[in-house]
Amino acid sequence: MHSESNPIGEFDLIERFFKTGNDLSITNPTVSLGIGDDCALIKPLPDEEIAITSDMLVEGRHFFLDAEPEQLGRKALAVNLSDLAAMGAKPLGFTLAIAMPTVNTLWLEAFSKGLMATAKEFSCPLIGGDTTAGPLTLSITAIGSIPKKTAIRRSGAQVGDDIWVSGVVGDARLALAALRHEITLSANDYQAVASRLHQPTPRIALGIALRGIASAALDVSDGLLGDLMHILKQSKVDAEITLAHIPKSATLQKQKIEIQHQFAASGGDDYELCFTAPHSHHDAILDISKKLQIPLTKIGCIIAAKTQSPQVLLMDSDNRSLSSSETAKLLQSFDHFAK
Amino acid sequence: MHSESNPIGEFDLIERFFKTGNDLSITNPTVSLGIGDDCALIKPLPDEEIAITSDMLVEGRHFFLDAEPEQLGRKALAVNLSDLAAMGAKPLGFTLAIAMPTVNTLWLEAFSKGLMATAKEFSCPLIGGDTTAGPLTLSITAIGSIPKKTAIRRSGAQVGDDIWVSGVVGDARLALAALRHEITLSANDYQAVASRLHQPTPRIALGIALRGIASAALDVSDGLLGDLMHILKQSKVDAEITLAHIPKSATLQKQKIEIQHQFAASGGDDYELCFTAPHSHHDAILDISKKLQIPLTKIGCIIAAKTQSPQVLLMDSDNRSLSSSETAKLLQSFDHFAK
Repeated sequence: MHSESNPIGEFDLIERFFKTGNDLSITNPTVSLGIGDDCALIKPLPDEEIAITSDMLVEGRHFFLDAEPEQLGRKALAVNLSDLAAMGAKPLGFTLAIAMPTVNTLWLEAFSKGLMATAKEFSCPLIGGDTTAGPLTLSITAIGSIPKKTAIRRSGAQVGDDIWVSGVVGDARLALAALRHEITLSANDYQAVASRLHQPTPRIALGIALRGIASAALDVSDGLLGDLMHILKQSKVDAEITLAHIPKSATLQKQKIEIQHQFAASGGDDYELCFTAPHSHHDAILDISKKLQIPLTKIGCIIAAKTQSPQVLLMDSDNRSLSSSETAKLLQSFDHFAK
Repeated sequence: MHSESNPIGEFDLIERFFKTGNDLSITNPTVSLGIGDDCALIKPLPDEEIAITSDMLVEGRHFFLDAEPEQLGRKALAVNLSDLAAMGAKPLGFTLAIAMPTVNTLWLEAFSKGLMATAKEFSCPLIGGDTTAGPLTLSITAIGSIPKKTAIRRSGAQVGDDIWVSGVVGDARLALAALRHEITLSANDYQAVASRLHQPTPRIALGIALRGIASAALDVSDGLLGDLMHILKQSKVDAEITLAHIPKSATLQKQKIEIQHQFAASGGDDYELCFTAPHSHHDAILDISKKLQIPLTKIGCIIAAKTQSPQVLLMDSDNRSLSSSETAKLLQSFDHFAK
């Protein structure tokens, strides 16, 4: 299993590709000890909680072997920061564990460049690392802070709350469909949606602004309606969603209406926030949208649970409920082990 | 890449194999939100710092495909807890990211059993998870707490400090040598050392006891002398080690003297603590040894750095310095990418 192609050691590897640039340019006052010891140390403020999230990206599954490594570096951190955003947390730092078959210097330089650009953008230094030989796999744990009692949990949605989504959804799925040759897009249209697949934007500022406003939130990684089910399940409520209100890009709106609905309702990888909030916060939410220049769209509302299993009632544009088979089709969310 | 053999979803997977048992039996008062949301939440005490460490274990590299999954579950968490121990931190919780080719229920049940037994032993609940299809890879991030200003860093060793090691070292390497047919061991001898390879004991209680006593510490994962170099490098000092003083088990002492020295000095996977401390703490350290019933052995002392590169001066039992080539051979530490 030892790589014979390049005798560089793992300690050198962290030093060479990740530590130096990191120490020079990316700092966070809460990190009291960064990379290079047995553990990193974080010194939270007395009134803060620490938020922690881990994600694993596997070559061939979450990205392709020919993925542009700089983009991959950005995305690997962005998807973890997106989980912090969904909680209302501010990034503090992250650890990176990486397995790769051989030490490819060019790949590592580009990957590290993208990773560190995102780290710098969000003042989120690399605070720990592990590198090993193995099939290309990235595992990042992101750490954030949040004032006590302000974390936005999935379990807080109340009957009568509005349901909102940030930005537009379905574009990442459309880009994937083009890459898979399921759909043919013009070069311009592909360009317009590809960045949503390869360069998701973690909604950190939005998450922070929603503290005290949103009653529940999560980030849309596996598909809007499928992810919403987690809020419904944990909050023990149902939801009513108007399909036509789910925000879609102009590019997605060029597709057949069935594709629009399918991709917007259940396409993964958008990393927008879906959140619930009491109707009394409606105007405050529109103010946040204006201030942050992020579209925020009301797509439905929380209703009382009818059964033990959470349900999404989908309404078409004529305010007619969709049949359960129509709904089931749209609820097919991306699941890593499902058929 | 989707596994077609078993349509169980990833959410069910975490719930089924990890969440339930965890929630019922393993708690830590500092964890304010466990698994099941976008992030876990930890509420540290006002005078505490948070310690964070990540490790990745890859099938074929860190363990064999036929590894007993219950043992693997124990070891995967233990090696991370060992990093917390080396800092003097107390475990709070951990996240697990796991890639596996297919959902093997029997494997998962056994793995989870071992993992959770260790979690319970150290009051360290699973607080977050990610599961995906892919080559078998485990990535754990462990979180611990430590009173402010008491963390034992690698950079604190001072000229004149004693160098200590806990337990015995070299047994894990001896077990590996037997598995690799490099050395033939009797069944009894193999039994005596195999648990050191498969079931390392994180020295949590020792790390906590060494707060305010040890000036620097780390855990021996890649080989005693190679790991000691990290302390020397960060503390900008050299070390003098008496080879015969490195503690070895009775089983290792049955081997040829060259094997004894090689395995004790540079065999990996022992997960003992190597630490430095002012000579004034000599008796306090022997008291800790007695109280915790863990052998603690003085193996040398810290001396002033001779050059920019840290050096270990090895002494044989006649107090003769070993030649640089003899030393170099013993310093060959396990490095994941080196030849």
